[in-house]
Amino acid sequence: MSEVRQKATLAKGAVAELNRLTTAQKNEALLAAAEGLVNGTGAIIEANAEDLQRGKEQGTSASMLDRLTLTPDRIAGIAEGLRQIVALPDPVGEILETLDRPSGLHIVKRRVPIGVIGIIYEARPNVTVDAMGLCLKTGNAVVLRGGSSALSSNRKIVEIIHQALAGTALPPDAVQLIEDPNRSSVDEMLKLNGLLDVIIPRGGSSLIQNVVQNATVPVIETGAGICHTYLDATAQVEMATAIALNAKVQRPSVCNAMETLLVHEAFAQQHLVNLAERFKEANVELRGCEATTRLVPWVVPATEQDYATEYNDYILNVKIVSNLEEALEHISRYGTKHSECIVTEDSTLAERFQQEIDAAAVYHNASTRFTDGFEFGFGAEIGISTQKLHARGPMGLNALTSSKYIIQGNGQIRQ
Amino acid sequence: MSEVRQKATLAKGAVAELNRLTTAQKNEALLAAAEGLVNGTGAIIEANAEDLQRGKEQGTSASMLDRLTLTPDRIAGIAEGLRQIVALPDPVGEILETLDRPSGLHIVKRRVPIGVIGIIYEARPNVTVDAMGLCLKTGNAVVLRGGSSALSSNRKIVEIIHQALAGTALPPDAVQLIEDPNRSSVDEMLKLNGLLDVIIPRGGSSLIQNVVQNATVPVIETGAGICHTYLDATAQVEMATAIALNAKVQRPSVCNAMETLLVHEAFAQQHLVNLAERFKEANVELRGCEATTRLVPWVVPATEQDYATEYNDYILNVKIVSNLEEALEHISRYGTKHSECIVTEDSTLAERFQQEIDAAAVYHNASTRFTDGFEFGFGAEIGISTQKLHARGPMGLNALTSSKYIIQGNGQIRQ
Repeated sequence: MSEVRQKATLAKGAVAELNRLTTAQKNEALLAAAEGLVNGTGAIIEANAEDLQRGKEQGTSASMLDRLTLTPDRIAGIAEGLRQIVALPDPVGEILETLDRPSGLHIVKRRVPIGVIGIIYEARPNVTVDAMGLCLKTGNAVVLRGGSSALSSNRKIVEIIHQALAGTALPPDAVQLIEDPNRSSVDEMLKLNGLLDVIIPRGGSSLIQNVVQNATVPVIETGAGICHTYLDATAQVEMATAIALNAKVQRPSVCNAMETLLVHEAFAQQHLVNLAERFKEANVELRGCEATTRLVPWVVPATEQDYATEYNDYILNVKIVSNLEEALEHISRYGTKHSECIVTEDSTLAERFQQEIDAAAVYHNASTRFTDGFEFGFGAEIGISTQKLHARGPMGLNALTSSKYIIQGNGQIRQ
Repeated sequence: MSEVRQKATLAKGAVAELNRLTTAQKNEALLAAAEGLVNGTGAIIEANAEDLQRGKEQGTSASMLDRLTLTPDRIAGIAEGLRQIVALPDPVGEILETLDRPSGLHIVKRRVPIGVIGIIYEARPNVTVDAMGLCLKTGNAVVLRGGSSALSSNRKIVEIIHQALAGTALPPDAVQLIEDPNRSSVDEMLKLNGLLDVIIPRGGSSLIQNVVQNATVPVIETGAGICHTYLDATAQVEMATAIALNAKVQRPSVCNAMETLLVHEAFAQQHLVNLAERFKEANVELRGCEATTRLVPWVVPATEQDYATEYNDYILNVKIVSNLEEALEHISRYGTKHSECIVTEDSTLAERFQQEIDAAAVYHNASTRFTDGFEFGFGAEIGISTQKLHARGPMGLNALTSSKYIIQGNGQIRQ
């Protein structure tokens, strides 16, 4: 049996036991894991050094190496993240609906764990702990397939967690790490119907597209964000400037950052020259439509391809539109249904925008950067769903649960 | 452009307009469609005769021909089904959650249509109308791909619906029928990411498995049901007999019918001989485990394959178990997570069964035949989901909706 199938089978074998655990037992196990990680800091950093060494030899970029690096502080932060998950309410067991039927049947819809969750992700080893914590808190088993560049770190982290769990009621088999660095182990996970109940990809768009295109196991698609901000004619100039700058530069590398700024022509006439200067000062390269380049001659022309690109970088498209319809049309064409924003003082216009835009989160007068499980108050985030089934937008613990109907009868038969 | 892509594009083009419709406008359109179908009864029956003629020539079975047959009464029934959908509350627009954040953001999670729904189904032409009605009521466009054996009927029905919708606010493009009878048109639908938001297969297990195995568009898996009834030692004999018989023979062809009866050995010792007689009188062929065949010698031995088969027929497996654990184990091995039942007077045992069984619906002292959107009070049913994401169990109108976050700010930027 392959490593993938073997470990997924072990994970599935833990499901019944996980399902019986109380909230207190799950929390106790997560606290033990957090303590184990802190106590194992030295060993984790040693393993991490191997990954970093290999990365350097392979010419990995400085920013990638930084994301891969673990320090005592970062490990303490990761353990603290687990403790925060402990502090969250346990959604499992929640009664979602109660139906009393004319037949006399009493039907309760109860929240339950999903079962076995596969997570396919890239280099950052903190995802290993974070995803594990969220899955275990909701009574799920988890099969982790991290990037090969973090393999030594991930292996040590999971080894420590297994040891910590062994002293608790939570079966260590509930956490599995796929160590096979070949792409074929990902391909195998994608087809493991019957063992995995869902796969959540976390990473860049090529990773996500590979999962979406090839999985037969149900997938929760996350991540890709070509987000827009539309500055209407009536937008307050200071608010508009602050929101647009924040949406682009506060953290350009993330999915809820803005990639294209749409500007009403009236606003553009008055304010675009100044606004463009502000972006320039913030080291943002601007690419503009023809009208933009006429107003701000130093802006380079944007191509079709630019509008369809998630830069995740200090680059921004600027397009001038003559009305709301044109803005809606552009977003409908290039958006990825993630986060969109209108800045306007006209509440009727804002309502239309929020009604008609088809996206997980639609903002009026606030930065798209708020699309985030913590900012929404979920206390955790396993990712941001850009699909429409099961979960849409930031996913907290509830997104890692399913439901079942528990039906009490007294001999009912169907006529 | 292929027929599939062309029609899916038309459907997608209707989404924005659908999204703007009021409940009254959608209801008016559905009532017009119902009226159109009744007025078009003659033309529909004529088209249906072509399908029946072709079916007879191809040697289609009598039961299949019956499912394909439309009569004035059946058409009236189909139209009445649409009127019942009109009478249901519209879930779109419902506020699912309101979050007021320390940042000052006011976040509303609102129920919205999914977008474009693909339905792939088999011969019964009533599904054409039923699925269309449920999709339109929830503001979705629908791309229908029915079985080729009902093509003439489906074409006429959709033609009539298009005519009826033309006089309403609902864009006729919202309903599309794929007429290409080749399997390749199904294959093409399965990969239409970006045009179709979800595919719901309705039909036999080979149809469903083809969709699950090959779709890159998200799928809601429906249907397959290997359902069990477990008669515990303490089960009341009359109740147990009534429930077991009902679960098998009231309508054996459907997914919530029982395929295997599990019997505690103490119950079996006392009552299995009589119970087996009752099944025999109801023309049910029994296949039993070794212990069963010792108690009831005329029962033929059951094979591994039998336990894994959804008969949808007057055939039943019987297996004697020595305790709850053995019953749970059998169900975990052969069940399809659809509907499972325990008959017992021991409420602790019932609770354990209901807690540990991983299925959409878990019954205590009632027939599994109740797993149904109408019996659950949803007023409609687009299918019974056997997966764990998005929807589980009978799916009413809510299962055809997604959500989005509408966020009101006053200039918030992220720190």
